[in-house]
Amino acid sequence: MLPDALLHLIELLARLPGVGEKTAQRFALHLVSEKTGTAQALSESLKQLSERVKSCDRCGNIAEVDEQGRALCVVCRDKRRDPSTLCIVAKVQDLLAIERSGAMRGHYFVLGRLLSPLDGIGPDELPLERLFERLSEDGVREVIVATPPSVDGEATALLLARELTTRGVAVSRIASGVPHGGDLEFADQITLGRAIEGRRTLDSR
Amino acid sequence: MLPDALLHLIELLARLPGVGEKTAQRFALHLVSEKTGTAQALSESLKQLSERVKSCDRCGNIAEVDEQGRALCVVCRDKRRDPSTLCIVAKVQDLLAIERSGAMRGHYFVLGRLLSPLDGIGPDELPLERLFERLSEDGVREVIVATPPSVDGEATALLLARELTTRGVAVSRIASGVPHGGDLEFADQITLGRAIEGRRTLDSR
Repeated sequence: MLPDALLHLIELLARLPGVGEKTAQRFALHLVSEKTGTAQALSESLKQLSERVKSCDRCGNIAEVDEQGRALCVVCRDKRRDPSTLCIVAKVQDLLAIERSGAMRGHYFVLGRLLSPLDGIGPDELPLERLFERLSEDGVREVIVATPPSVDGEATALLLARELTTRGVAVSRIASGVPHGGDLEFADQITLGRAIEGRRTLDSR
Repeated sequence: MLPDALLHLIELLARLPGVGEKTAQRFALHLVSEKTGTAQALSESLKQLSERVKSCDRCGNIAEVDEQGRALCVVCRDKRRDPSTLCIVAKVQDLLAIERSGAMRGHYFVLGRLLSPLDGIGPDELPLERLFERLSEDGVREVIVATPPSVDGEATALLLARELTTRGVAVSRIASGVPHGGDLEFADQITLGRAIEGRRTLDSR
């Protein structure tokens, strides 16, 4: 019923998180019929995206690419922040949520994924070597583990505690306050602020 | 906190129907971080969209653009369909929903909008001249008004009945079956099929 070019667009839009085929079709038909040039502007913006935005070379946060092709995010460029405190998060959305709470004045490390034995993601799939490099590079004394309070998040936190305490770093876990099984990205600022303030020492023994 | 290029992308994505800023940010971060090239593919697909897909020159349905730059949709190209029966719908999504029900063997006319005095859309804003041309071009004997059963949809149906009965065309309205205030796009196939089968004569006197 629909032209191939439109079906292809629908297929691509359906890859967006939380978007099914019906919603993707709605998006596509909107883009075909609206007159303000959103489709063209979106095409341009997406084309430039990979040239102008990358993961931060240091922490994995979203960062603008500079003239030399390097990417350093606003947190890593901020000289007023304390590099000896490192906050480990699962994904960029969680980093942004913590930044909005204003309770974290240290630096970040984005894991990109969590331990998940059922999906075949073991310790070797986590960027632990890069994390250990960061510890010595920055002289990190305290690590705050801000993985989500889910099964995978807790498992990852325990692994990190075991690996980091042997390296002489104080490891803490964000406090309960974020509801169990919930998503950091959607927690409110006060809850996240309290979770950071009320962190407790993590002991793997 | 986020680079300008990403903020611009978020702004454009938030123009999609039903997408707020939070969802748009989720889409944008997904597009930056995923590795399968969806952003580039989407950019290409959107760029080609306006060259390859247009509104059908005859009925307003979505159509593929041919070598001569003309656009004729699959319904208008189908010789087995009955051009003397014309189904008037508000938007392309509604046409697609009716097609899925399989109950309509005639042709279509997409209005593109409904009467809406509160939004300043009066009879002059509807493509009535083009509709009257279609009636004589195709020798239309029966018109089925399939505007949605909402306030604007009913008002539009009454206007169409008044204009079309004076031109010697039998005008009918899709049957109740589609719940009042509902959206045709999301009605199930059986409901839409029954609505077409159970249509009743519309009399404006």
